[in-house]
Amino acid sequence: MFRPKVVILGAGFGGLTAARALDRIADVTLIDRHNFQTFLPLLYQVSTAGLAADHIAHPVRGALRKSKVKFRMGSPLSIDHKNKSIKLDSSEDIPFDYLIVALGSATNDFGVKGVAEHALGMKTVSEALTIRASIMRRFEDLCRFEDDTRLSISVVGGGPTGVEMAGAIAELKKGPLTSDQPEAAANIVVNLIEAGPRLLPSFSQSLSDRTIKDLQKLGVNVYTNANVQEVKPRQILLKDGTAIPSEITIWAAGVTGEPAIKKLNLPIEAGRLKVDPTLQVSNYPEIFAIGDVAGAKGENGRPLPMVAPVAMQQARFVAKQIAALVSRRPLGNFKYRDKGSMATIGRHKAVVEVGPIRLGGAIAWYAWLWLHLFYLLGGRNKIGTMADWTWNYLTFDRGNRHIIDIN
Amino acid sequence: MFRPKVVILGAGFGGLTAARALDRIADVTLIDRHNFQTFLPLLYQVSTAGLAADHIAHPVRGALRKSKVKFRMGSPLSIDHKNKSIKLDSSEDIPFDYLIVALGSATNDFGVKGVAEHALGMKTVSEALTIRASIMRRFEDLCRFEDDTRLSISVVGGGPTGVEMAGAIAELKKGPLTSDQPEAAANIVVNLIEAGPRLLPSFSQSLSDRTIKDLQKLGVNVYTNANVQEVKPRQILLKDGTAIPSEITIWAAGVTGEPAIKKLNLPIEAGRLKVDPTLQVSNYPEIFAIGDVAGAKGENGRPLPMVAPVAMQQARFVAKQIAALVSRRPLGNFKYRDKGSMATIGRHKAVVEVGPIRLGGAIAWYAWLWLHLFYLLGGRNKIGTMADWTWNYLTFDRGNRHIIDIN
Repeated sequence: MFRPKVVILGAGFGGLTAARALDRIADVTLIDRHNFQTFLPLLYQVSTAGLAADHIAHPVRGALRKSKVKFRMGSPLSIDHKNKSIKLDSSEDIPFDYLIVALGSATNDFGVKGVAEHALGMKTVSEALTIRASIMRRFEDLCRFEDDTRLSISVVGGGPTGVEMAGAIAELKKGPLTSDQPEAAANIVVNLIEAGPRLLPSFSQSLSDRTIKDLQKLGVNVYTNANVQEVKPRQILLKDGTAIPSEITIWAAGVTGEPAIKKLNLPIEAGRLKVDPTLQVSNYPEIFAIGDVAGAKGENGRPLPMVAPVAMQQARFVAKQIAALVSRRPLGNFKYRDKGSMATIGRHKAVVEVGPIRLGGAIAWYAWLWLHLFYLLGGRNKIGTMADWTWNYLTFDRGNRHIIDIN
Repeated sequence: MFRPKVVILGAGFGGLTAARALDRIADVTLIDRHNFQTFLPLLYQVSTAGLAADHIAHPVRGALRKSKVKFRMGSPLSIDHKNKSIKLDSSEDIPFDYLIVALGSATNDFGVKGVAEHALGMKTVSEALTIRASIMRRFEDLCRFEDDTRLSISVVGGGPTGVEMAGAIAELKKGPLTSDQPEAAANIVVNLIEAGPRLLPSFSQSLSDRTIKDLQKLGVNVYTNANVQEVKPRQILLKDGTAIPSEITIWAAGVTGEPAIKKLNLPIEAGRLKVDPTLQVSNYPEIFAIGDVAGAKGENGRPLPMVAPVAMQQARFVAKQIAALVSRRPLGNFKYRDKGSMATIGRHKAVVEVGPIRLGGAIAWYAWLWLHLFYLLGGRNKIGTMADWTWNYLTFDRGNRHIIDIN
């Protein structure tokens, strides 16, 4: 039987799942700019000293050991659509019969002025380490000042990412930093700024309300209906004229399709690749797009959320589509099965929503822990993360408070 | 009783031990440029993907929780000897009655041309991550070339640091990288270059011989009597004219007192602070120097080795000297009790020398493991390191092969 050459761009949740699913029927080449997969859902715990950076990364070659999939570290420069090959920045041309674009997403500043210059993103391990170093460095400043100088840390965006980040910073302040130097820790202010009327807009109203209460209990100042006009040095300016002091601004307001797709000469719509219901890129039947980079729409006609379960379901679906193409069977249309959403706020505080089931508090928190541990790649990472979590849980400490100097 | 103000420069093995020992009798301020202590003896395992970077670092404030010691992050700019205060780069002036200089050491290039430009040092966590990223990035290149291009990695210096590093790189090649891509791993060449006639010159001849054999068994090319003339890009030139190809050169040939001591206006001899047998800096009775930065001499009249046990013994000794000064008792002279040396070469391969006892092989290796685990600071680090080691031991893998992009 014909064994197609499949090239997959991106080794995130989508790309890696697709590579493994296609290994049996295709010669797969997986391409990523990093030699590791980043477990994005736990990145905020690296930023807030809860987890070691190396534990939320997993070498791609390690993940592929039991397969025949080839890996190349590099970024795509262009597609030669006529000869069906992709040019990498490592000056290789890799031919394909089918291409899967799974490049993920990047921080979306929605055109707000000053985000690129004065806000920190949280999409990569090095960005997470930068946030950690910024917080710890400013904390050392506070310790030195020995006065009532305040350090305001603001998270912009009230979705799950922003909520988890704000909660984790508040707990870092309350636990480890207070043990380190109580007077300095008391001068830290944590803000969460959301443009819409409520936090976690994709959850039910009751869980939104619970989240806001939980965050306030942790000492987070929650601003809703707060539209950011501009991020300035040490300040966030809202559209209504309010100025919020903010020495450290973390931008978690949203993501958009990875900008590298602009180089590929493929149709883009609202920042993501335009795809048919088959997940083929419109007018490019040999090219599929999955995950955050794909502008697939749900049954309600709205774009699907940019979350790992969508990418993984699409990855397995596209593997079947390629198998169908190879055996000349007709293609199907992708349908997302929403298995629910969850977000953690802090110790014993989380929210879970699965269809009609709505959970909060400790049960939701344990569910969150186990599910994340389950999906984390690599036995070593699972053990290391479990050890760090157990340690943090029992001691109320967070041991990764190092400012690692980046040369 | 008079409670003196003691300022300690450096939170390494010496500085941190001195701070804890003095906490009861003095108002101690501990100063370091990092907010964490680096466990230098295990740094080479971070470079070679065996340990997570965060596990060999420990927050200084965490280590001081049960004490009243104050911590300041910063570097010394100068000493005001008249008013007895020290100026930090954070624009603070910190007054002292007694000062302990424990700034440690830096890479010593012995004036060899090209070391600063073309060799990698291994004294900090970020340097260790740079070595790891360099090795893994070149390995990805080899995987891409798919030909017989060789990658030569050379370690210069046959002391314990160089031996441990070369052994760990050889095991990284043999285990994880061979599992990742056997053809590419086979093209990696590991060199160890020593200027003297034998490896581990501070050990007995029999253990030196054993070490060279163990390293060769692991596939390391050992060069002895090989004096480096110059480090060039991708090449090491020896004094006898031999040119050794070397894409990555790691400089472990020696260390010298931290160059920051030059700013302190204190007497320096052979790169280290000149001290009396009391460990007071010559002509500065209120200033002590301990550890790598102190040029203390042993009973044989030779400078003491730059290792952690010397620094820790001197730290406890100086704490007693300051107590004696406070209660106007006479000062003693420091005597180093050598508890032996050890170096690990690879799995089940290490050498230990304690007085007349000489051990090699698995017993020495287990002794090495337990001793290092014992001295590693922080329960979380001990658990994490033990977990990583157990995992590496059982799976022959090393999970920290990530190239973390340094912005």
